[in-house]
Amino acid sequence: MNTPPQKPRARDIGLKFPGTPATLNAITDVKGVSVGYTTLIEGHGKLVVGKGPVRTGVTAILPRPVNDICQPVFAGMFSLNGNGEMTGSHYIEEVGKFALPVTITNTHSCGIARDATIRWAAKQFPDYFEGEFALPVAAETYDGFLNDINGMHITADHVEEAIVNATSGAVDEGSVGGGTGMKCFDFKAGSGTASRVIQYAGTDYTLGTFVQANFGDRADLKILGQPIGQFLAEPPILQNTRDSHLSSIIVIIATDAPLLPHQLKRLARRATFGIGNTGGFAHHGSGDIFLAFSTANTYATPGRTEEVLLSRHIPDEHMDPLFAAVVQSTEEAILNSLIANRDMNGRDGNFVPALPHEALKSAMGIY
Amino acid sequence: MNTPPQKPRARDIGLKFPGTPATLNAITDVKGVSVGYTTLIEGHGKLVVGKGPVRTGVTAILPRPVNDICQPVFAGMFSLNGNGEMTGSHYIEEVGKFALPVTITNTHSCGIARDATIRWAAKQFPDYFEGEFALPVAAETYDGFLNDINGMHITADHVEEAIVNATSGAVDEGSVGGGTGMKCFDFKAGSGTASRVIQYAGTDYTLGTFVQANFGDRADLKILGQPIGQFLAEPPILQNTRDSHLSSIIVIIATDAPLLPHQLKRLARRATFGIGNTGGFAHHGSGDIFLAFSTANTYATPGRTEEVLLSRHIPDEHMDPLFAAVVQSTEEAILNSLIANRDMNGRDGNFVPALPHEALKSAMGIY
Amino acid sequence: MNTPPQKPRARDIGLKFPGTPATLNAITDVKGVSVGYTTLIEGHGKLVVGKGPVRTGVTAILPRPVNDICQPVFAGMFSLNGNGEMTGSHYIEEVGKFALPVTITNTHSCGIARDATIRWAAKQFPDYFEGEFALPVAAETYDGFLNDINGMHITADHVEEAIVNATSGAVDEGSVGGGTGMKCFDFKAGSGTASRVIQYAGTDYTLGTFVQANFGDRADLKILGQPIGQFLAEPPILQNTRDSHLSSIIVIIATDAPLLPHQLKRLARRATFGIGNTGGFAHHGSGDIFLAFSTANTYATPGRTEEVLLSRHIPDEHMDPLFAAVVQSTEEAILNSLIANRDMNGRDGNFVPALPHEALKSAMGIY
Amino acid sequence: MNTPPQKPRARDIGLKFPGTPATLNAITDVKGVSVGYTTLIEGHGKLVVGKGPVRTGVTAILPRPVNDICQPVFAGMFSLNGNGEMTGSHYIEEVGKFALPVTITNTHSCGIARDATIRWAAKQFPDYFEGEFALPVAAETYDGFLNDINGMHITADHVEEAIVNATSGAVDEGSVGGGTGMKCFDFKAGSGTASRVIQYAGTDYTLGTFVQANFGDRADLKILGQPIGQFLAEPPILQNTRDSHLSSIIVIIATDAPLLPHQLKRLARRATFGIGNTGGFAHHGSGDIFLAFSTANTYATPGRTEEVLLSRHIPDEHMDPLFAAVVQSTEEAILNSLIANRDMNGRDGNFVPALPHEALKSAMGIY
Repeated sequence: MNTPPQKPRARDIGLKFPGTPATLNAITDVKGVSVGYTTLIEGHGKLVVGKGPVRTGVTAILPRPVNDICQPVFAGMFSLNGNGEMTGSHYIEEVGKFALPVTITNTHSCGIARDATIRWAAKQFPDYFEGEFALPVAAETYDGFLNDINGMHITADHVEEAIVNATSGAVDEGSVGGGTGMKCFDFKAGSGTASRVIQYAGTDYTLGTFVQANFGDRADLKILGQPIGQFLAEPPILQNTRDSHLSSIIVIIATDAPLLPHQLKRLARRATFGIGNTGGFAHHGSGDIFLAFSTANTYATPGRTEEVLLSRHIPDEHMDPLFAAVVQSTEEAILNSLIANRDMNGRDGNFVPALPHEALKSAMGIY
Repeated sequence: MNTPPQKPRARDIGLKFPGTPATLNAITDVKGVSVGYTTLIEGHGKLVVGKGPVRTGVTAILPRPVNDICQPVFAGMFSLNGNGEMTGSHYIEEVGKFALPVTITNTHSCGIARDATIRWAAKQFPDYFEGEFALPVAAETYDGFLNDINGMHITADHVEEAIVNATSGAVDEGSVGGGTGMKCFDFKAGSGTASRVIQYAGTDYTLGTFVQANFGDRADLKILGQPIGQFLAEPPILQNTRDSHLSSIIVIIATDAPLLPHQLKRLARRATFGIGNTGGFAHHGSGDIFLAFSTANTYATPGRTEEVLLSRHIPDEHMDPLFAAVVQSTEEAILNSLIANRDMNGRDGNFVPALPHEALKSAMGIY
Repeated sequence: MNTPPQKPRARDIGLKFPGTPATLNAITDVKGVSVGYTTLIEGHGKLVVGKGPVRTGVTAILPRPVNDICQPVFAGMFSLNGNGEMTGSHYIEEVGKFALPVTITNTHSCGIARDATIRWAAKQFPDYFEGEFALPVAAETYDGFLNDINGMHITADHVEEAIVNATSGAVDEGSVGGGTGMKCFDFKAGSGTASRVIQYAGTDYTLGTFVQANFGDRADLKILGQPIGQFLAEPPILQNTRDSHLSSIIVIIATDAPLLPHQLKRLARRATFGIGNTGGFAHHGSGDIFLAFSTANTYATPGRTEEVLLSRHIPDEHMDPLFAAVVQSTEEAILNSLIANRDMNGRDGNFVPALPHEALKSAMGIY
Repeated sequence: MNTPPQKPRARDIGLKFPGTPATLNAITDVKGVSVGYTTLIEGHGKLVVGKGPVRTGVTAILPRPVNDICQPVFAGMFSLNGNGEMTGSHYIEEVGKFALPVTITNTHSCGIARDATIRWAAKQFPDYFEGEFALPVAAETYDGFLNDINGMHITADHVEEAIVNATSGAVDEGSVGGGTGMKCFDFKAGSGTASRVIQYAGTDYTLGTFVQANFGDRADLKILGQPIGQFLAEPPILQNTRDSHLSSIIVIIATDAPLLPHQLKRLARRATFGIGNTGGFAHHGSGDIFLAFSTANTYATPGRTEEVLLSRHIPDEHMDPLFAAVVQSTEEAILNSLIANRDMNGRDGNFVPALPHEALKSAMGIY
């Protein structure tokens, strides 16, 4: 996982995005944040529940280095369309923070991702968890078009593996981790990331976004404002089973800009515009839930806190550049999840093609 | 499980509550609703994570008969204090309904309760779930004072067992199901239920409430308005381990009164007053999340719906008697969860006494 | 007001939008909905608070015919960015409905618009209001760049005039009513409207959107996906006073499709994508609050309600075409508010140019 | 207004409340907070809309000294039952703060209270408001049982008068200011206040609560846990007009404890328990909206802010004593609004008796 395979990214095929990415153009540009994957691809042909074919995985995003992972980050959340799950949401809404790794997987394994994250933490920090509970964030999108989702192939060990795998370097994209079996605009999609640098008051702040993209109809796809989806009918998706247009997108936004919980809710809400820029508009069947956190403020773990905490924040009045960074990085992360991909077939011969780069470039007039 | 043991209830010791209960004074008075438990009690002495002692369980509440369990009920939710988990909340907030059994368990097994509910449903209704996902409700309170909560003793099979056990008759109370290891006002508590009949426009409607009660300090306990907790110092809780005042209450409200989603949110919010009547005021560490659903309106499962649905509802202007029923039945259900109980010891010799009936009666002046 | 002046609309200059508008391409295509304006334009030159210059007004949108105006409509609301005001929001969130005319005006006259709506209603329906209160919807955007906003030029009579003026025919656009002093992308904007027809289950439903548009920086403007704002530096805005980038957009969505309150919240949320399509992304200083209502279900006024009400609704699973209609009509209504306009100068010589049609057409390649 | 008349308070008649009040047992115990009233009582007999009888007023609560009133306070809000109005709510939810005086008046004058607060501020701080807008908080309860509410007797000057009247000393209670025409449990009520001192980490913090109480049926009244309302049938309310059980309570909570916006929402939510302790349970017709603010953190007015702000806050884990202070002070403030009162008659001979002190003491066994 340390050396992502050489997959192209949206910029590599000539797409020009506004704003300035940080070094890796990834969520891991935010210092201390790391990403790990477990990817499960096994079997072909007819679905046998519990056997496969398997096209799924788990993604773990660690908001702080492992040794500090029990120290909360301020956070905020937004549900654009709640036809999905993100555990930990009540806690974040209540106290504006969360701790421990965030996991993202398929819809029917979201619970095990949550519980296994606690199991991992309780083993890592036995003293802390001797009389403490945890309410971790686990999110999901639906991969049942390609994957034996009712086979429940994700185990607690797979979840731990993703957490342990997490690294802070370049981030693999496409059909990896929780994104393994996902599709977006009827092209193969899944995991994607991007980042932006925001200059404010003499300081460079970084904002990085990670998406698990799994939404949209082909005809709706827009790239940099062009309604390109309607010109990309080929290659078609091949569908042998009922499809309930079960789509979703999870967006995780990290930043080192100092922000309070209510401000992180504001950030999260802006991911909507990034999705809109690619042509999505939150179908009924979509679970579009967004989480934003800031690593800037630190304080001891609960129970050992300072008596009165001091927190820094950028005034709300100066947040517009951060909002723009969310819009830009969400849009680019979604396109990265598409561009990085290859064709995939899965259960019952269902087939999702990759977004064809040459046809895309030609349609967009990029040479 | 069909024949609840002969446990006393709050009325049995002479407490007088306002309002008129239905036949069983239980959530199962609402036609079609059933409750099932899996109770795990094993081992004594020093905590060995993964071994025990085990004092935990799972509760399943089925909003409709098993054969109709994929047919959603209108629902609404309220988080009084979100230091807890209730999966499915985003979905309920978005579309005002849910399907499948509701499960309640301990904090660290909430995820497996959720996923296992899907596993059960996918086996029961393989055709329906061939290309469909589910976002079931699973909730939790913390039992780590008595239970080896990090041992993750709840398995998917235990969850299924609770679902399969569900019956529509009298409901066992106290240290059963998800309530097994819970305490309330430093007395042994857990599962409790009560119901009320509401007459409206010539019809008798039923509203039933189920609680998993696990909150409050001894000194705060009030019974029927009397600050009884401060006179009941004996017997004390025995505590050999760190306790983080990790408390919570989950309230599930069922009714056959015809109500729309926004009205069920209003019902859920009123559980707050029932808790307040017992002396609770939602401590920081408490996960106080309430769910209300109505069985009155029926429609086919998604994907096979009528083109335009017809729903009945009582006008908002006439909801006050329903609000009162929520307050009354929540208060009584909490006290039932206490009165039904016996002493319990658990991990590391931690001990939670039962609420002593005679001392209580004497303090209250009940003969 | 019955005969709107001959102002061009976005389609008139060759812009092609997706979807099918209804007869008038206006919110008044929804049967029973009417729109009225009071427009105040007076004085030039230096600001003298209380004297002028005045560039403001009031818009009234009646969700039902005047005689039925006390009969609520089901409604839902969304605050994309709450740096603004919409009274009545608590009530709509609580009971999913509202009655009486909706008014929209400038930020500092929102209160008088609210109270004067009650005054009008109490005079119209003295028996009903003899022992009843009202919580009407009044919203606002900021016109202080052109208008003497602290002069409080809107009177209760002006508000009544807008209500009484309301008609159900073609709707005037641009610098009229509450939109009189507004700007959008640094071009003159204000009131705009559009509509869509949605075919569902053999029925044609209508959805109409009205905006008071007052947001965005010139460089951000996008038209039909093209980043046209950066090519339209001319003519510039002329600014002689401090400007705090105080921008906003109010969106009112009406439909005759039968929907429940929770579904109307879902509709309202989709206006976000329409704004995003024009380049907006909800600046900090923006009050972006959206209201959706459905005229389909009728019932008697409160206090005289049926005992149990019957309501129709389209299943959530079939809402995607309605979502698309919101996105499309919001985008088109914003552009209509720009295209219909002419240059305007105001207080202290501040000047906002109209969006130049020829330059726009040339930049877009429309001939 | 500086010397409140000698009215009794709940403690004066022997009621014992938990917790320790600060010096004045009033919201003005929080340093910098002041309260002012305008009270309008005129005429008797038959209602003539626009003539009277008049039984109404305006209350102004200034969160900071007048000279600092444009400097926001962190704030949070909760709507227990949204059948009421509190303007400024969208802004508070969005950015967690508000500036300017809070006003409370009758339901149909809430808009003028809001706009007139801006008018006052624009005159006081003409430079600041030369290019700025405001979104002040104005709230309401319904006094139409005694008052000619549709006569709109509150003028902008009355609102300014309440603001200018504000003082930081003892606070008059009962039928004054916005509370003039209110009733609670069918006894005369209106304005009430109380405070608590909270010791934390070696510091004494103060929390003060102000209510405009106007809710509840006689039979529901509880005092210190005793269901006293059912024993206080005399004297009855006299009602000659239709009454729609239009009741409400506005709760304003001030503290000098350093808290962030999300924490102030938590505080606001706890007012529910204080209401519950008096027997209220949020009837359908009630507008029960609560606002909490903290004066602890200061920063320059928007537009002149520091680049990065430093804020102090008590960790969420230590908020329970603050929660208890909210419950206690809300309960006591409601009872103060009752105990301070005298009988009042109003429109059409409607009559609301004072809570009879001797009968109360006798029923409670207080000598």
